[in-house]
Amino acid sequence: MNQNRMILKGNICYSRSLSELRILEPGYLLCEDGICRGALEASGGPEALSEEWRQVPVTDYGGCLIIPGMTDLHLHAPQYEFRGMGMDMELLDWLEQYAFPAEAGYAKLSYADRAYEGFVEDLKASFTTRACMFATIHRESAELLMEKLDKAGLAALVGKVNMDRNSPDILREKSPEESAEQTVQWLERTAGRFLQVKPILTPRFIPSCSDGLMERLRRLQKAYRIPVQSHLSENPGEIQWVRELCPESACYGDAYDRFGLFGGEDCPTVMAHCVYSDRREQELMKERGVWAAHCPQSNMNLSSGIAPVREFLDRGIKTGLGTDVAGGHSLSMFRAITDAVQASKLYWRLVDQTKKPLALEEAFYMATVGGGSFFEAAGFAASGRFEPGQSMDALVLDDGPLRASRDYTARQRLERLIYFDDVRTLKAKYISGKKVSH
Amino acid sequence: MNQNRMILKGNICYSRSLSELRILEPGYLLCEDGICRGALEASGGPEALSEEWRQVPVTDYGGCLIIPGMTDLHLHAPQYEFRGMGMDMELLDWLEQYAFPAEAGYAKLSYADRAYEGFVEDLKASFTTRACMFATIHRESAELLMEKLDKAGLAALVGKVNMDRNSPDILREKSPEESAEQTVQWLERTAGRFLQVKPILTPRFIPSCSDGLMERLRRLQKAYRIPVQSHLSENPGEIQWVRELCPESACYGDAYDRFGLFGGEDCPTVMAHCVYSDRREQELMKERGVWAAHCPQSNMNLSSGIAPVREFLDRGIKTGLGTDVAGGHSLSMFRAITDAVQASKLYWRLVDQTKKPLALEEAFYMATVGGGSFFEAAGFAASGRFEPGQSMDALVLDDGPLRASRDYTARQRLERLIYFDDVRTLKAKYISGKKVSH
Repeated sequence: MNQNRMILKGNICYSRSLSELRILEPGYLLCEDGICRGALEASGGPEALSEEWRQVPVTDYGGCLIIPGMTDLHLHAPQYEFRGMGMDMELLDWLEQYAFPAEAGYAKLSYADRAYEGFVEDLKASFTTRACMFATIHRESAELLMEKLDKAGLAALVGKVNMDRNSPDILREKSPEESAEQTVQWLERTAGRFLQVKPILTPRFIPSCSDGLMERLRRLQKAYRIPVQSHLSENPGEIQWVRELCPESACYGDAYDRFGLFGGEDCPTVMAHCVYSDRREQELMKERGVWAAHCPQSNMNLSSGIAPVREFLDRGIKTGLGTDVAGGHSLSMFRAITDAVQASKLYWRLVDQTKKPLALEEAFYMATVGGGSFFEAAGFAASGRFEPGQSMDALVLDDGPLRASRDYTARQRLERLIYFDDVRTLKAKYISGKKVSH
Repeated sequence: MNQNRMILKGNICYSRSLSELRILEPGYLLCEDGICRGALEASGGPEALSEEWRQVPVTDYGGCLIIPGMTDLHLHAPQYEFRGMGMDMELLDWLEQYAFPAEAGYAKLSYADRAYEGFVEDLKASFTTRACMFATIHRESAELLMEKLDKAGLAALVGKVNMDRNSPDILREKSPEESAEQTVQWLERTAGRFLQVKPILTPRFIPSCSDGLMERLRRLQKAYRIPVQSHLSENPGEIQWVRELCPESACYGDAYDRFGLFGGEDCPTVMAHCVYSDRREQELMKERGVWAAHCPQSNMNLSSGIAPVREFLDRGIKTGLGTDVAGGHSLSMFRAITDAVQASKLYWRLVDQTKKPLALEEAFYMATVGGGSFFEAAGFAASGRFEPGQSMDALVLDDGPLRASRDYTARQRLERLIYFDDVRTLKAKYISGKKVSH
């Protein structure tokens, strides 16, 4: 018997498609070497299991719901410490007054050590199993963050940030050469070193990256074949700035594309926000296979607006959800799901009544399958569903603390648990089959 | 020495005005017989206290923030049990499929007993010190709810609901006479009976109240001089329905006003939502002194829209915040504050860029002073600020669980605590000077 097999039992719920859930009430979840081997109806008892699985120990979670882990497709780890502050500002002011000064602190490794420790601890205790994140420009701090995430058993893509212009002195790399050189050192030290934590190339956004730097990052991307993350079309002021900086670009996305850092073959790319991505930019995203990381809470907090997510979905643009801590103040992906639904309702009501609001199923899909597919493109095992071959990333949820009546359907209980957004309901969390305690 | 005196010490923070906070870092909060006797700067030590207060015991909360309790100006107690469900629907469908069937259960006192017990327990543990709420049409259940709130030490206005048309059979009172008679019995049994829980007249909304019923409620209001609560201009479909039902009314508000149930002398009235209150309706509200209970989360969940709160404030309409459980899924008034700020940002961005988003100070004011002033009009001691003569309703907040750096200013810590919205930060809660444990 394979010692690396286990079975979880509970009420299983995951996305069959964008608009449909698969529900097993109850079900068995088969796991081998950290990989899901399928989900089976369990109401008939162990008979449903094939002979080779009948001897495998079953962890029975009774009436709990078991759902796939959440993938947070965009957040800033160094901003976690000051989340929920300065929320009366718009993007560019907020960057200058809060984000940049705080990030400068991470030049000191001792500072980063303390701050990242708290962040990783809270991320571990959250509903998130995978996260794609920005660190700061500081090579050693970024490496430290990766070590901490690895030790906590989390799956992550982490970016040492590149920025060599239009930034405060304390947070500006002195030249494109220096920025690129630091990036190479960081890549050499981290690529392939961790089990489930990998580097991702991270030009902060067009305004803070010179053409010279972008050109060097293009070369690094080709050489190391690593994925790319950045920001796109978040705020009107920012977009106008990019227009002035890059008059030759057809759109904001094109300013990345000119340097080969906007998707395409061997360059999985995720762009955060896309609030103002028009038809032309969306078509470019679709063509290049660029992922959109929709961050509704941040887009409200920074008065950015509401991204046209329904258009993304209709157009077939791959879309996930991000908390964008600390533009977003909450680290919770359950909150991101409900924020996405709420924002889509206001978009429908206030902007365009031909754009149907997101159903819970659709936002849930984005938070699991949508984000998970980016990690798959970036070299991880697939995640987000309990299909054979996917990574066994699972959340076990107990709605006891919510005074739940047991008469609710699994679908109703899922909705309640997501809206309640209470980590006390998180009974267990598995990443690649390993139980991550908290 | 007066035995009923006490002093709280901590970092005190409350609204000086709509846009300004008064902060004492640290300060003394003087309390006598449940009433605030003022807040004093404490940095110089006990010298700041007059001789008669120097012997009074001081409860020192160290670095904690002490702020006024929150007033929830609109919620539905019987809907608490199914909050966070059916969130994919608009108002009228949601009422029919979720709210009405659930409310029908409260015909059984045993059912109400169990459900209200959970609601009151959670309300007690929340940031809310006062709440203005709907019960159901059931007289005895409403009375039971009032008993439980009173026992828990909470301050509340509770309405037995009136509805005699356009409602499912199980939730429709058989005639205006029966509805009025039940209301009289309920008033006779509850008015003046509790320390801080009082009845409030509660026609559900125009569509569910016949003219005959409204006429009877007018007479009851005059006879008992009790305050009034209802719903106003929440959703386009509802407004259109009211237009059809009351073709003679100039606006939705006028349909209440024709029956003398829309503010004016001796008739303190609060109307929930007011999402679509136009200039005319707002002017009527202003003229009659009607309070608006702004419920941003519910207005998102039910795709209603965003209320023009900046206009309310500019026009001098008294405005408070409500969770509107279960149109809102969260019982937290801290969440209501951040929802109000976020909604106002989207209103500014998407609807009208002349309407400045709410500052945190303004939403905080609405949640404390705004709601508190309605309770004052309804015969309670004033609340919402730590001024002499106001009720001592206070929250003691400890941001320890938030990994707070102590370098933040009191204003920054207040913002963080509100955005974090975590009841674990609630160290103590006082209502009328009494510590309500949780």
